[in-house]
Amino acid sequence: MSDKDISFMHRALSLASRAMGMTSPNPMVGAVVVKDGRIVGEGFHRRAGLPHAEVEALLEAGNAARGATVYVTLEPCCHYGKTPPCTSALIDAGVKRVVVAARDPNPKVAGRGIKILREAGIDVRTGVLEKESRWLNRGFMSRMERGRPWVMAKIAMGLDGRIALPDGSSRWITGEDARHEVMRLRAWYDVVLTGAGTVIADDPQLTVRLPAHERQPLRVVLDGMGRLDAGYRVAESGTIVFSGKVADKANIAALKNKGVECIFYEGERIPPSFVLNTLLEKGVNTVMIEAGQGVISSFAGEDLIDELVVFVAPRVLGKGLSWIDVRLDNPLSSVPAWRLLDNRTVGEDVMLHYVKRAYGE
Amino acid sequence: MSDKDISFMHRALSLASRAMGMTSPNPMVGAVVVKDGRIVGEGFHRRAGLPHAEVEALLEAGNAARGATVYVTLEPCCHYGKTPPCTSALIDAGVKRVVVAARDPNPKVAGRGIKILREAGIDVRTGVLEKESRWLNRGFMSRMERGRPWVMAKIAMGLDGRIALPDGSSRWITGEDARHEVMRLRAWYDVVLTGAGTVIADDPQLTVRLPAHERQPLRVVLDGMGRLDAGYRVAESGTIVFSGKVADKANIAALKNKGVECIFYEGERIPPSFVLNTLLEKGVNTVMIEAGQGVISSFAGEDLIDELVVFVAPRVLGKGLSWIDVRLDNPLSSVPAWRLLDNRTVGEDVMLHYVKRAYGE
Repeated sequence: MSDKDISFMHRALSLASRAMGMTSPNPMVGAVVVKDGRIVGEGFHRRAGLPHAEVEALLEAGNAARGATVYVTLEPCCHYGKTPPCTSALIDAGVKRVVVAARDPNPKVAGRGIKILREAGIDVRTGVLEKESRWLNRGFMSRMERGRPWVMAKIAMGLDGRIALPDGSSRWITGEDARHEVMRLRAWYDVVLTGAGTVIADDPQLTVRLPAHERQPLRVVLDGMGRLDAGYRVAESGTIVFSGKVADKANIAALKNKGVECIFYEGERIPPSFVLNTLLEKGVNTVMIEAGQGVISSFAGEDLIDELVVFVAPRVLGKGLSWIDVRLDNPLSSVPAWRLLDNRTVGEDVMLHYVKRAYGE
Repeated sequence: MSDKDISFMHRALSLASRAMGMTSPNPMVGAVVVKDGRIVGEGFHRRAGLPHAEVEALLEAGNAARGATVYVTLEPCCHYGKTPPCTSALIDAGVKRVVVAARDPNPKVAGRGIKILREAGIDVRTGVLEKESRWLNRGFMSRMERGRPWVMAKIAMGLDGRIALPDGSSRWITGEDARHEVMRLRAWYDVVLTGAGTVIADDPQLTVRLPAHERQPLRVVLDGMGRLDAGYRVAESGTIVFSGKVADKANIAALKNKGVECIFYEGERIPPSFVLNTLLEKGVNTVMIEAGQGVISSFAGEDLIDELVVFVAPRVLGKGLSWIDVRLDNPLSSVPAWRLLDNRTVGEDVMLHYVKRAYGE
C-alpha cells in the first residue's frame, strides 16, 4: 500500500474521532475524497440519524467526486437504515477507487458493502490502518463481534493501590487535573457505571461538565441491596438503576418519579453479564466503570474488563481498601495480562492506560 | 549570578556524579578550573582516600590555575583528613575566584572553608546550583544534618499495589528491564536492606551485576526472629545481619564463619532507628530498602522513608499482600506527602520516582 493511502486514511481517522462519544449505537466513521492527489471533500458521521461520513464527504466534493478516490475508515453500508446505503451514493457519484480501513462486522454489511462496490466496477482496497480503525471503534466492534459492550475501568488510587481509608473516606485521592481528565473520559463512553456504595458515600453527579459538550453518558447504578433513594444527585433522567429484590417500593416509585429507569433483578448481587446484556440491547457500545472495590471486583472476576485507566496519586494510604479484591487466573503468568498503551503525568498524578493483552494480539 | 557560573557548575556537578555510589562516607564533589572563559582543569572525588575534586582539577590546570576561577560543588574542606585541606591547595595555586554550590554541613567545615578563602583575598560566590548539589549528596547531607542516613524504598508491584499472592509467591512481578534498573539503583546506594522473610522466600543475591562496576553495596538483613541460616546466598562477607534475641547460636556461628557481621538486638522486632543509627556510625549515607510488607511498613510507620522508586507492572494480582500495611498520619491531606520526580516507562513496566515533599520545600 502506498504512503499516500496511509496518509489520507490517517486524515479520515482523525475526522472520525471528532465524533468520539457521539455516534452510538453507530460507529465513528470518517471519509476523505481525493482527486488528483488533492482533498476535495471531507466528512464524518456526527450522530445516529445524521448523514454517514461518505455522504458528507461526497456532498462537499460535488462533481469533483467523479473519478476520485474515497478513503473511508469503515466499510460503506449497503442497507437502508436511518439513511440510504452509502454504496449507492459512492456508485452514483462515479468514484473510481475506494480505500477501506476496517470491514463492518454488522451482519447487515459484513463484506457485502465491499462486494457491491467491486461489482459496480470500483477498485476497492481494504485493510489500510485497519487496526487503528478497529481500536477507535472498539466499542462497536465488541458489541458486534463479541455480543457485549467494551468495558473500561477507571481507577484513582494511592501508590499502594488503595482507594479508601479503613473508615471509608476517599475524597480526594487524585488532584484536580486528573479529575478533569476523568470528565473527558466520561465524554467518550456511552455509559458511566457505578455501585450504590459509591453513590451513597460520595453522591457523585457522574456527568460531563466541560464547555461545549452536548451529550451526557447514560449513568448506571448497581443497587442489589436496594439502598438507593431519590435524594442523590444521580436520581434524575438519564440514569438507570439496577435494583435487587430487596428494593423498597416507595423508593423505586420516588426514583421513577424523578425520571430514573429502574430494572429489576431477582437477587442481591446483580450479575455483571446481566447488566452488560441489558445495556447491549439498548445499543450501548462502551461502558466506563467508576466504582468501588465490590463492583470492580465482580466485573474483573468474570474477566469482563477490557481496558484500564489508572490514576496514581502521589500519596500512600497505608491501610484501607484496594481497588480490587478477587481471585484472578494466573496473575503471575510469564506474559502479563495487560499491555501499557500510554503513560502520562497529569498534574501531580500519573495516568496509566492499559488494554487487556488478549485484545488484538 | 551569570549564566556562565551556572553552566560551569553544571559541568562540575556532572563530574561529581560520575562517582555515584563510590565515595561514602565522603560526599560526591566535582570541580572545574576556568581561565579566560575556558576550562583548563577538571576533577572529581573518586573514592574516600583518593584526592579531592579541587586537587585533581588544580593538578590538571597546573600553572594555568593562577588567576583562574574554580567551580566546586561543595565547600572546600579546611581540615586534615585522609588528604590535606583543599583551601590551602586553592590558596597556594593562586586562584582568583571560587564559586561554590553548597556549603559543607560537616561540623569540621561548615562555612569555615569559605571564610578561610575569603580571608586569603579570594572572591567567593556561594549558592550556585545549591539545590542540585544538595540533592546529589542527599545521603551525605542527611547524615550530617539529620543524623541519619537517607532512606529510599524500592517497590515492585502490580497495578493493585500488591507484591505477593496469598500463597506468598511473588516472582516475577516486574520485567527484565525493570530488574536491570534495580541493579543500577543498588549501585548508587551504600546499603541494600531487606528482611529475613524476603531472603527465605527468594534467596536474592542483592548484588550489583553490571559490567565494569567495582563496588558492591553493603547488604543488611533484619532477622528479629533469628530465622536466617548460612545456606542463603547473602550469607557471605559484605553482609550484616541484625539478629533478634531468638537467634540460634549455631546459626550465628555459621553466619560469622561465612564472613557475615552479626549485630544483636534484644527483641524480636529490630527497630528501624536502631538499624539506622548503627549504619550511621559505620559512615553509611544512603540506604535502599528492598523488602516485603513488614520491613517497609515498620520504616514507613516511623516516617523514615525519604524517597520511593515504584515499579508498576502491567498485571493485577487481585488478592494478596500490598507493599505496605500500616496506619499513616493524614494520608488524604490536601497536599500529598510525596512529590513526583520522574515518570518513565521501563520495558513493560512504569518506573515512578518520588521524594517526600517535606524535603527541600
